[in-house]
Order: sequence, then structure tokens, then C-alpha cells
Amino acid sequence: MAKMVLLPVLLSFLLLPFASLALTQDFCVADLSCSDTPAGYPCKSSVSANDFYYHGLASKGKINPLIMAAVTPAFVGQFPGVNGLGISAARLDMEVGGVVPLHTHPAGSELLFVTQGTVAAGFISSGSNTPYTKTLYAGDIMVFPQGLLHYQYNAGTGPAVALVAFSSPNPGLQITDFALFANNLPSAVVEKVTFLDDATVKKLKSVLGGSG
Amino acid sequence: MAKMVLLPVLLSFLLLPFASLALTQDFCVADLSCSDTPAGYPCKSSVSANDFYYHGLASKGKINPLIMAAVTPAFVGQFPGVNGLGISAARLDMEVGGVVPLHTHPAGSELLFVTQGTVAAGFISSGSNTPYTKTLYAGDIMVFPQGLLHYQYNAGTGPAVALVAFSSPNPGLQITDFALFANNLPSAVVEKVTFLDDATVKKLKSVLGGSG
Amino acid sequence: MAKMVLLPVLLSFLLLPFASLALTQDFCVADLSCSDTPAGYPCKSSVSANDFYYHGLASKGKINPLIMAAVTPAFVGQFPGVNGLGISAARLDMEVGGVVPLHTHPAGSELLFVTQGTVAAGFISSGSNTPYTKTLYAGDIMVFPQGLLHYQYNAGTGPAVALVAFSSPNPGLQITDFALFANNLPSAVVEKVTFLDDATVKKLKSVLGGSG
Amino acid sequence: MAKMVLLPVLLSFLLLPFASLALTQDFCVADLSCSDTPAGYPCKSSVSANDFYYHGLASKGKINPLIMAAVTPAFVGQFPGVNGLGISAARLDMEVGGVVPLHTHPAGSELLFVTQGTVAAGFISSGSNTPYTKTLYAGDIMVFPQGLLHYQYNAGTGPAVALVAFSSPNPGLQITDFALFANNLPSAVVEKVTFLDDATVKKLKSVLGGSG
Amino acid sequence: MAKMVLLPVLLSFLLLPFASLALTQDFCVADLSCSDTPAGYPCKSSVSANDFYYHGLASKGKINPLIMAAVTPAFVGQFPGVNGLGISAARLDMEVGGVVPLHTHPAGSELLFVTQGTVAAGFISSGSNTPYTKTLYAGDIMVFPQGLLHYQYNAGTGPAVALVAFSSPNPGLQITDFALFANNLPSAVVEKVTFLDDATVKKLKSVLGGSG
Amino acid sequence: MAKMVLLPVLLSFLLLPFASLALTQDFCVADLSCSDTPAGYPCKSSVSANDFYYHGLASKGKINPLIMAAVTPAFVGQFPGVNGLGISAARLDMEVGGVVPLHTHPAGSELLFVTQGTVAAGFISSGSNTPYTKTLYAGDIMVFPQGLLHYQYNAGTGPAVALVAFSSPNPGLQITDFALFANNLPSAVVEKVTFLDDATVKKLKSVLGGSG
Repeated sequence: MAKMVLLPVLLSFLLLPFASLALTQDFCVADLSCSDTPAGYPCKSSVSANDFYYHGLASKGKINPLIMAAVTPAFVGQFPGVNGLGISAARLDMEVGGVVPLHTHPAGSELLFVTQGTVAAGFISSGSNTPYTKTLYAGDIMVFPQGLLHYQYNAGTGPAVALVAFSSPNPGLQITDFALFANNLPSAVVEKVTFLDDATVKKLKSVLGGSG
Repeated sequence: MAKMVLLPVLLSFLLLPFASLALTQDFCVADLSCSDTPAGYPCKSSVSANDFYYHGLASKGKINPLIMAAVTPAFVGQFPGVNGLGISAARLDMEVGGVVPLHTHPAGSELLFVTQGTVAAGFISSGSNTPYTKTLYAGDIMVFPQGLLHYQYNAGTGPAVALVAFSSPNPGLQITDFALFANNLPSAVVEKVTFLDDATVKKLKSVLGGSG
Repeated sequence: MAKMVLLPVLLSFLLLPFASLALTQDFCVADLSCSDTPAGYPCKSSVSANDFYYHGLASKGKINPLIMAAVTPAFVGQFPGVNGLGISAARLDMEVGGVVPLHTHPAGSELLFVTQGTVAAGFISSGSNTPYTKTLYAGDIMVFPQGLLHYQYNAGTGPAVALVAFSSPNPGLQITDFALFANNLPSAVVEKVTFLDDATVKKLKSVLGGSG
Repeated sequence: MAKMVLLPVLLSFLLLPFASLALTQDFCVADLSCSDTPAGYPCKSSVSANDFYYHGLASKGKINPLIMAAVTPAFVGQFPGVNGLGISAARLDMEVGGVVPLHTHPAGSELLFVTQGTVAAGFISSGSNTPYTKTLYAGDIMVFPQGLLHYQYNAGTGPAVALVAFSSPNPGLQITDFALFANNLPSAVVEKVTFLDDATVKKLKSVLGGSG
Repeated sequence: MAKMVLLPVLLSFLLLPFASLALTQDFCVADLSCSDTPAGYPCKSSVSANDFYYHGLASKGKINPLIMAAVTPAFVGQFPGVNGLGISAARLDMEVGGVVPLHTHPAGSELLFVTQGTVAAGFISSGSNTPYTKTLYAGDIMVFPQGLLHYQYNAGTGPAVALVAFSSPNPGLQITDFALFANNLPSAVVEKVTFLDDATVKKLKSVLGGSG
Repeated sequence: MAKMVLLPVLLSFLLLPFASLALTQDFCVADLSCSDTPAGYPCKSSVSANDFYYHGLASKGKINPLIMAAVTPAFVGQFPGVNGLGISAARLDMEVGGVVPLHTHPAGSELLFVTQGTVAAGFISSGSNTPYTKTLYAGDIMVFPQGLLHYQYNAGTGPAVALVAFSSPNPGLQITDFALFANNLPSAVVEKVTFLDDATVKKLKSVLGGSG
């Protein structure tokens, strides 16, 4: 060690035994062509720097006119490099009046960075049903605990943008109204398990594309 | 070993080194007088068989006339022996017409055993909003994945009873309508983040004890 | 949002980006035709409500005359819907005199609901070797911490039935006597590592189908 | 359910049994006055919306002239609301020429969002020692797998800013040169375990405030 | 960066924000005076290198004449530095004829390094009751999966020594015969849940110090 | 139970239902021909005792003359039986003057048993950059927390040997100098993210086989 005059070829003694381990011990870029497993996708055999990089959040998402907002995910399905790493991202664009309706992420907590505009956000605890609400400005962050109902909406006079991180490569997104009204769950069942009347359920099913 | 003629006192050589480890390595009965931690409550220092036993699910729960049902939990708060063990229980009693309204358990999956009557149950996947529904009879079991919206209601002509297990000592219970209407979250916010109109929100807030 | 007059077709903007994630983010029904992994089986590509439902515990299991009892599992091998969800189930039927002999579940804690009869149950802590025993009646529950030796037997005058939940989709079941006597582990080794004499070991090997 | 004419007082039947569970089942805001545990801090007994909100990343951090950059953490120590939630944040400000030197986060993966300027970033895999490097522009994201050596520096002509999320409430930050030179680890040891000569080690110890 | 001529005092800008995080993010030496939690003991506030070091395995353990062996643990109770780190150790000394009787570690897998002598070792799978046995010589290693029954005994003509590591700071040790016979579990219960006769149970209770 | 006169064939009633579960519930020997997953390799379908045994640490590793030491891993790649079990091993051989240079294991804590000679070892905490150092003699153990920089070198006058266990089947090994100098990361980048000058970087790249 004191004298480093040895030839580089000698290094192969130390390097070789570990070379075959390198890929999967450090990361596991998703091979989306395989079946998922409870811990995430099997690992791709060949990776490059591009697997750990994603450009898809750099520009404004396509605004859905119904909610005047766009949610652009960088979950494992879009960004395979996060597979197995316990983290993922998304971008929220909210026009004036835009809203990300009441929803949960069944598999992860959310950390929101407001980068532009004014965002009203809140979550509701289970059990005591306590709402925790804040008005957030550019630079503010807020955390939404895993699985709890929460929302964000534009509370300002111009567009609002937020970057979002999740504590899971695949946190899920369950928008309550879509779960209730954007499918063929019979109206009678929806009415039974909510406190809504038939007219409200039928109207929302119509608006949100559901049937039954 | 071949000759077991040694005096019991000799056993102390082997027994002693491990005696001090016994309590916490095997289980960790919750000391509910302490602050909780992210992994559960600190362990009680003295335990007995009663800590691992619970009688509170043996009889019918107190029926809430609003939903004609009772949900009786045996979570860590009621049954401290489950602390740290990744499991807990509850009992569901549903009168004719009774319902456990749309809800999630933010921190656990649910496994339901129907022990009496007929139960209609379902959950809705996130993303695709697909409902998975079944009519269950005595002896049937159904699993509800963690964090997804689900419901149960009595679909028979007599009382229905179910025993429920969760994959967490403290799975939580967030009933969607209670989260929306049984607190002081302003009606305008509720309307903004759902697709409900003002009259519906105000009516449900009144029924469910909310304000604002 | 204020005016919900938009056509359902507009929803596709919001729905589409998440549609491809739906299946695996919410649940992972086991594809038992694949190799298992340390976190469970790979996910089936097509699922239905039946995957989350199991009828196999609805009727009494086939009584083994040796123990006058039946253990009917609903582990991932029988009930693929529990894969990755941290929970599974079983049914215990014990005739008068029936017993589930001393055993462990190496991979999960157990929560037992007695639904009929009288059950004597107990587990033994490691280290201090303290037994925790209870007599349980219909409606009582008891929890058995992961990996610890425990037993149940019918302590009443009629049949006893219990429903069981585990904190793992595949908790395992290692019955001590079967591990020792129902295989070809040489008798001399069994004697060496227990405190049993040769006659006892040979007799039990004979009864339990072992050799050696 | 069909008729919601019951008095709100009736709700107490359903609400009460769960009220005592609410706080810790949903979140566990750190009580930083207590000792930490392997799973995070014990939970505060009284929380408000402010516990889930943090303003400290809204403005530019104090630039360290040595590296012409600032790393402003929102870990559990600064932002107690993330305790137990598997996520935290930080802000990077890099002046022209600024750099976040080679470092690891022993306890978490990092996801970086560039919000301004141009950032050169890279990490090196273990075993094969392969560098994965990218030049990132505003809006780009990159993920750095847990525990691997990585760096970021300003590769543009104006200030660069990045928001960072971690898959842990307390990911740690070990800057290699600070670990080697900013303490009293004897120079002879540093030389022995790196391939550096005495003059280099002594010079860096002097610059970085170390001794020995 | 190019010119490292800045005064060490400047470093305080970078060092300070992280200084308060250092202790608990990296490790959590057990404060054994506190109650344990499901994730391990609370962290000591002041630590030194000695907390990460243990001398107690350096010499031969005290041989128990009943088994002609000694098991010397370095679990969290003896070696607080392993708290929260997912690893611990022990030393096995087996005289000629010595044995570590059939046992499980409920909370961890075991990896055994034979350092002296000849060791016969084996474990039995659950379900199929298959024994996996090997004779091990100095330098050999064997792994015993979590929770499965296993044993080791001296199969040579001189003393045998093994070093053991566990995948838990507190793996537990449940010796089957001690669980059955070294306590006051009534003989009738032991007989009921094993296939042993009364004379055998009473004899072993006498040898192992049990009663009942 | 009282009378064990039944034929062994009767046992098939109890044995059969569990037989199909045996393999994967207890262990999951790596099938290295498959892609890895975030939780480890898929399980081999056919296993034997040899899968849980490894001979490769029994003899001295091949000394790398550059560091006068050998690191011989028994990670999942060499010892597939540890897959999914949260543990693995390695052997360190250090000649007089030998050293295992500054490194981290990104995915596991390390527990070191010195079996021969005298070893100087240390790790550095993150944040406060505190070194924790010890001189270890035969029989001593030391634990190195996950992800932290540490080193070992021979501090005696004869060869030193240590056995090492890790809290992961695949802990990784990132040697700092190899990460910096044994690849094609441009010298200008290395200089930018360390505090090293161009001559030092170029010299070390030359010695360690790097380019750029």
C-alpha cells in the first residue's frame, strides 16, 4: 500500500470476485416485460444512466378539463429505475380553479413541494376524522401520511405547480369519486354504502362515465 | 446426554444466560401508558396469559341505529397482546339492512370470515376503478387489500356476523363519509374536492354531526 | 369542477395514465405456476373477484384419526389472493379428544377465534420457558407470537371449531413430533438432540411413519 | 341508511370506539425530546396541521464558500411530521461552480428534481465501479440508489437549485472527504486505508478542520 | 473548490445543519434501562467505540455438564451496539459428546462458522418434514433458516467450536425439551400435545427441573 | 392420541395438505439463472443439504498484492442458500501490512469476528464525522453499522484472519478508491467532487486501472 507501484493488472484479483454481484446488489431497474412481484418487478439485465433519469415531468401535463388539472406520474411504470428503491415522483399542474379531487395513495406517503402558485391542501385522519389543512405557497412542503384521504386545489389567481414524491415506487392513486362513479358498481350498492341519494349517484355516474 | 442423571441445579448454567432476554425477544405486549412509536408501543414489563387473550368479541356489539351495524375492534388499543405481532381482529354485527359503509384501513389488509348470515362485500381497485364484489355465506372468506376502498352489508333476511383479521395491530378505519361530513371541514372545500353539490354536502354534514 | 357538464370521454385524460398501473399496485394474486420469490409469488396477469374469495373453510375438514382433528389451510397455495398481503387463514376442527399437537409457524403470528366448543390453548416463551395457557370458549380470541411453540386441544364435551388468521400469506406449520419422527432422520441423531430414549424414538417413528 | 333522520348524537356509538386509536394509527409526529428508536422517535401526543408542513426549504440556503453550495435538510430533525412515514426532503442551492461533494446517504435512496439551472450528477455502482452520469436541466429528475457514492455540481452558467426527496425520514449524509479529513482520525490511518500520500492527507485535514 | 485556501471555520456552515442528526441516523446503541419496543430498544444518548465492540466471545463458555456444551450469546442484551442493525452473534463450545439440543430461533436465521473440530448439524423443513444434515469441518459454514428446528453436536474426537451470526439483534433461542420439560406445564398437557407417554414426560421434567 | 395404534398410512390425512407448501415457506434457495428481484432471486425448485452449506471460506483467499489482503465473499452469488434469509458471510485474510481499504456495504451491517492476529478497525459516523476505532484481537467482535465508511487493517506482526457476517444476503462492497479511480469517470469530475488535485487523481487512476 505504501508504495503504489504495482501494475493495474494486479487489481483483477480483488475486482473479479465481486464483479458478478454488482448489478443486483445496488439497484434493480424494472424489467416491465416480466410479471410484477409483491416486492416489485424483476431486474433488467442491462442498464444505463438513462434508466435512472426521467424527463417526463419537465413540462406541463395535459390538463383534464373536468378538473382543470393534470397529474403526471413518474412511478415504476414510467420510470423503471425507481423499482425496489422505495421512492417515486409525480407532477401536479393545476389551472386556476383546478383540483386534485379527494384521493388516497394506498401504498405510500406523499411529500409535496409547491413550486409555483398557491395550493390549498389537506388530509383527514382516520378514527377522529380530524382535517389537517394548510394553504401552501411556492417553496412550502407538506406531507400526507400513507393511505389517508387528502386533496389539493389551486387557491390562487394563476396556475399552480407542485412536485410530489412518494415513499413507494408504486404508491397507487385511488380517487374516491372515480372509485364510486367511474365504473359499473350498481347505483343501489353505491347508495347503500355511502349516504348519497339515487339522483346524486346517477348524475355522478353519468358525468364520470360509470354505468349501473 | 446419554445419561440424564445430573441434578436439575446444573441446568442453571444453560438457562441463566438467556433468561434476561425472554420477554422482549418473543413478544412485546403494549404498555398503553407510554407514547406509541412508529413500530408500536413500548413493551409492558410484566405479562400474563391474559395479555394474549381477549373476550371483547364474544358478544354482539352495540348496534349504531344509523347504520344498523356494529364494528367492535380488537386492535392494539383494546388487545395489547397483538402489539408488534402484525395482526389484530374485529367483529362485525349487521342487522337486517345493516351496512359497514365505504371505508379503508390505511395500515393493513383485511381478511373476513362470515360466521352467520349473508354478506355482500366488495372493494375497488385504484387506477382502473374496477369493483371486485361477492356475496358471501357462512364459512366463506374474502380478503381486502391494504388501503383500498371496500364495504360490507347484510344481504340476507336475518342478522349477519363476521370475524375480521387485519395484517397490522393497528390497521385504522377511515369511513369515507365520516371523513367528509363528520367534522368541520368547510362545505365549500368538500364540494371542491368531491363532485357533490352544496345541498348534499350540507345535508350529510347535518346527519353525520359535522359543521361548516 | 363547478360545472359537471363535460362528456365522459374527457375522463380518459385522467384515467389513462394510471390504467396500466392498476393491477400490481393494489394487489398481487399469486401465479402459482411460477417460482416463488422471497417476497411471494409473481402476480397473475388476469384476476377476478373469485381470486379474493375462498370457500374451502366453509365445511368441516377431514378428521385425521390419529389426532382426531383437522387443520384446513387457506394459505397462498390454496388462496392465491392473499399473496403479498401479509395475511392468511385456516380452520381447525377438533373432535372430542382432538388435538393440534405442539407446533410452530416459522413465518407468522397466529390469531385464533373460537367459534364452537371449548379449546385449551397455550404457548411457551423462549428463554424463560414460561407457559401461557388459557381455556377458550366460543367468541374468545387468543394470539400466539411468531415462531413460538404452541398447541390447541378440545377441552370440552362436544366438537370444537376455530378460525385462525396468520400475519403471513404463508406462515408454515412445523409440528414438532412430525419433524422428529415422520422422516428418515436417524434415531441416534434424534436421541442425541432430544432427551428421549431409543425405545420412545423408535416407537414414535413407527407410529408417525418415519424410518431410520 | 335510506332514511337519514337520526340525530347526530347517535353517531357516538360508532365514533367512540375508534377515537382513541386515531393519533398513532395514522401518523406519528416525532417527539424530539424523547430518545430515538430503531424505527424512529416516539409520537407527540398533540399535533396540528403545522406538524405536517415545513417552510424551511422556501428560501435559498446559506452558501458555504468552500463548496459554493448549500444543502438544507428537511429530515425528521427539522420536520418532525415525516417521522415513521418513510420520506423526507432537502433543498440544494449551487452557485456557479458550486458542488455537493462525493457522498452517500446510508439510510435512503434519493430522488432529485432540478428546478433551476443545469446540474451534472452521477453515482457509482459497487462491485463493478461503473459510473452512471447525467447532465440534468430544469424539470429533469434522477434517482440515486441507497448507500451508493454520488455527487451533484452546477454545470451551468447561473445558479442551480434542486429539490430532493429521500426514502427515509432520516437518510443520513456522509460526505467522503469530511469523513476522512474533518476529524481526528490519524493521518497514518487515513493514508493506510486510502491510496493517498501524507502531504495530501495533511493538506486536506488542514483545509477541512481535521487534526492528527 | 479548486482552491482550498479557505479557513476551517467556514466549514461550520456545512457541518452544523447535520450535526444534530448524527447519532440516531447511523446507529442506535440500546439503552437497556428503557423498555424495549417492537423494533428494538431506545437509543443511548452517549456512545463510544466500546459500544460496537464485544470481548465476551473470546474465551470458551462455561460448559453445562448436562449437554457438555456452552452457548454464549452476544445478542442485544449483552452487546447493545447491535440494536437496530439486524445482526448479532454467539459462540458455541462443544466438548466431546457435547450437543446443542433441538431448538429454534423464532426471530432470525442463523449462519454458523465452524472454527475448530467436527460438527454434525441439521435442520428440518416444515410441511414435508425433510431433514437437511451435514457434517462440518473447520472453515465450513452452514445456514439455518428462520424459525426451523435445528441442532448441532460434536461429531469429532476433540472439542468443537463454532461462531454463529443471526439475522436479528435478538433472535431468541427456544430449546424444545426445555420448553416442554423445564417449567410447570402439567404433564397431562405435555402428553396430550406430544406423542410421549407419562413416564417419559415425568422423567424428563425431573431431569430438566420442571414440575407438574 | 392416547393410543397410538393407528397405521402410518393415516398420517397422510394430515401431511398431505401442507406438503405442497413446504419448499417456499421455509427457505428460498436462489435460482441464479433467473433475474434477481428487489427481494432476492426466485427460488430453486429442487434443493438439498448442500445448498445450505459452503466450503469456500475454509481456506485462505488469494492475496491481492496491492493491498496484501483477500476478501472472499459468501454472498448469495456464491452461496445461494442465504437468499431471502437476511444474512451472508465473508472471510478476510490480511498479510502483515495488509489492509481492506475504506469502504461501505450499501445494503447491510457487518459483524466481524477476529479469528487470528491483530486487526485495527474503525468506522466513521455521518453528520458528525466521528471515528469509532478499536484494536481487535483473536476472539473479539465488532459491528459496523449499515452504509457507513469503515476499514480494517492488520495491526500485528503475523497474518490476520477474520470471519464476517452481514445482515443481508447481498450487502454489496463499495471501496471508495475503486469507485473513484478504477473506472473512466473523468479526472476533472473526480477532482470537482473530492478535494484532490489533478496529479493525485491521475496517479491513482493509473495505479488502480482507471482512465479519463
